[in-house]
Amino acid sequence: MNILKNELLYEGKAKKIFRTDDDDILFVEYKDSATAFNGEKKAEIDGKGRLNNEISSLIFTRLHEKGIANHFVKRISETEQLIKKVTIIPLEVVVRNVVAGSMSKRLGIPEGTALKEPIIEFYYKDDSLGDPLITEDHIWILQAAEPDQVETIKSITRQVNEELQHIFAACDVRLIDFKLEFGLDANGQVLLADEISPDTCRLWDKETNEKLDKDVFRRNLGGLTDAYSEIFKRLGGM
Amino acid sequence: MNILKNELLYEGKAKKIFRTDDDDILFVEYKDSATAFNGEKKAEIDGKGRLNNEISSLIFTRLHEKGIANHFVKRISETEQLIKKVTIIPLEVVVRNVVAGSMSKRLGIPEGTALKEPIIEFYYKDDSLGDPLITEDHIWILQAAEPDQVETIKSITRQVNEELQHIFAACDVRLIDFKLEFGLDANGQVLLADEISPDTCRLWDKETNEKLDKDVFRRNLGGLTDAYSEIFKRLGGM
Ligand SMILES: Nc1ncnc2c1ncn2[C@@H]1O[C@H](COP(=O)(O)OP(=O)(O)OP(=O)(O)O)[C@@H](O)[C@H]1O
Ligand SMILES: Nc1ncnc2c1ncn2[C@@H]1O[C@H](COP(=O)(O)OP(=O)(O)OP(=O)(O)O)[C@@H](O)[C@H]1O
Ligand SMILES: [Mg+2]
Ligand SMILES: [Mg+2]
Repeated sequence: MNILKNELLYEGKAKKIFRTDDDDILFVEYKDSATAFNGEKKAEIDGKGRLNNEISSLIFTRLHEKGIANHFVKRISETEQLIKKVTIIPLEVVVRNVVAGSMSKRLGIPEGTALKEPIIEFYYKDDSLGDPLITEDHIWILQAAEPDQVETIKSITRQVNEELQHIFAACDVRLIDFKLEFGLDANGQVLLADEISPDTCRLWDKETNEKLDKDVFRRNLGGLTDAYSEIFKRLGGM
Repeated sequence: MNILKNELLYEGKAKKIFRTDDDDILFVEYKDSATAFNGEKKAEIDGKGRLNNEISSLIFTRLHEKGIANHFVKRISETEQLIKKVTIIPLEVVVRNVVAGSMSKRLGIPEGTALKEPIIEFYYKDDSLGDPLITEDHIWILQAAEPDQVETIKSITRQVNEELQHIFAACDVRLIDFKLEFGLDANGQVLLADEISPDTCRLWDKETNEKLDKDVFRRNLGGLTDAYSEIFKRLGGM
């Protein structure tokens, strides 16, 4: 495989997406930008792009090994990877094992409260609306996805939660919650996409409950690269 | 039946609830206060209490006639009624036939867009949290209601929507959306409670789409009592 990086297709808050000479493959460059609160808080943080690219590559590879189909093709460099091109379904699919963040604020339940069963929430991926929480009925009304696609998404999401819990438990990290994105590939199949990294997961040290994720940045709790490096190291990277 | 109004049990934004000499019966006095945006906007409006008491009494009576069990016992005076005492389930159950209000803002869908099917939304009844939209999973987590109670609530809610649509269509009013509250009676049975009035429904004139509900107050569209009187008149009152 010899795939060439062509023109910039989309620049997001965390990644640049390039076309390649293969119509089905995109080239991703992870940026050093950190943003929170729908872009209101911003910073450039040396090494963040590398850490998220490495961690996400590693996790998507493990998911492949466990039979969970996903968009990841290949790590290219410290900050770059190839992915299968999909049409992103405009839903942020959030799994919660423990109450934190917006769920704690919305429902008035203390952060850290463990849930008896994991729950899946859908947010409508639309920055101008602030990515609002929606119900499944809203998904049909918005025509964001078909009913069978939503069932597939929920089923893959539950499997991903199982695998991620194993992966993180093995290195003494509690998986509090995380966000997934899905897309439709060239055949119309639902495929897990985007990234899985400390930007998109809440990860707490098993013993101390120290936060090792983007909340370090959101809440000014210390060095973001220290936290992300710790996760990368525990996952076997360096 | 000779029921005496005893001490004030609860004063809300729209009604005063009194105990009576019968433990199972409460006495409600509808107030002339109008409030919106979680109490941020307030006014005293002469005649509002009478209109809501009359309209709600009339609607709950019709629902009784159609076999939909509810808390309404008896109209006592222009502004007063007796109701069966229930333990309110902390959910605001919203039915939407047409997109309006917060749903339009949340999803970015223009107000007035008709839905193919009515939808039911649940909001957690907690003023300090701003009555947030929640999913059914959140209902279990909050222990706001049991699964079978939620099924009963949805089933009664759909019936109420059918009946209200008939009632309002017959007087050239479009039922856009409305909010219901439910409670548990002394036997633990789910019972439709609270009020059904232009405070809790969006009602638009069938021909002109003129708003004949609380949006007149929320959005400063004219006289609230004119709008509410019009609804009362069309329903056969005066
Ligand atoms: N396999 C894929 N094919 C096409 N697009 C993808 C794929 N995986 C992720 N994307 C999209 O590429 C963009 C990644 O950029 P980034 O994460 O920086 O975006 P963002 O700033 O979070 O903005 P957005 O709100 O669009 O996600 C996102 O819009 C994401 O949905
Ligand atoms: N049958 C009933 N038994 C007991 N309480 C009832 C019954 N019907 C309605 N209620 C409750 O009585 C109160 C009515 O007062 P009002 O509508 O003025 O309250 P509110 O200002 O809307 O405040 P709240 O946020 O508590 O509803 C509400 O809390 C309502 O839930
Ligand atoms: Mg993103
Ligand atoms: Mg009320």
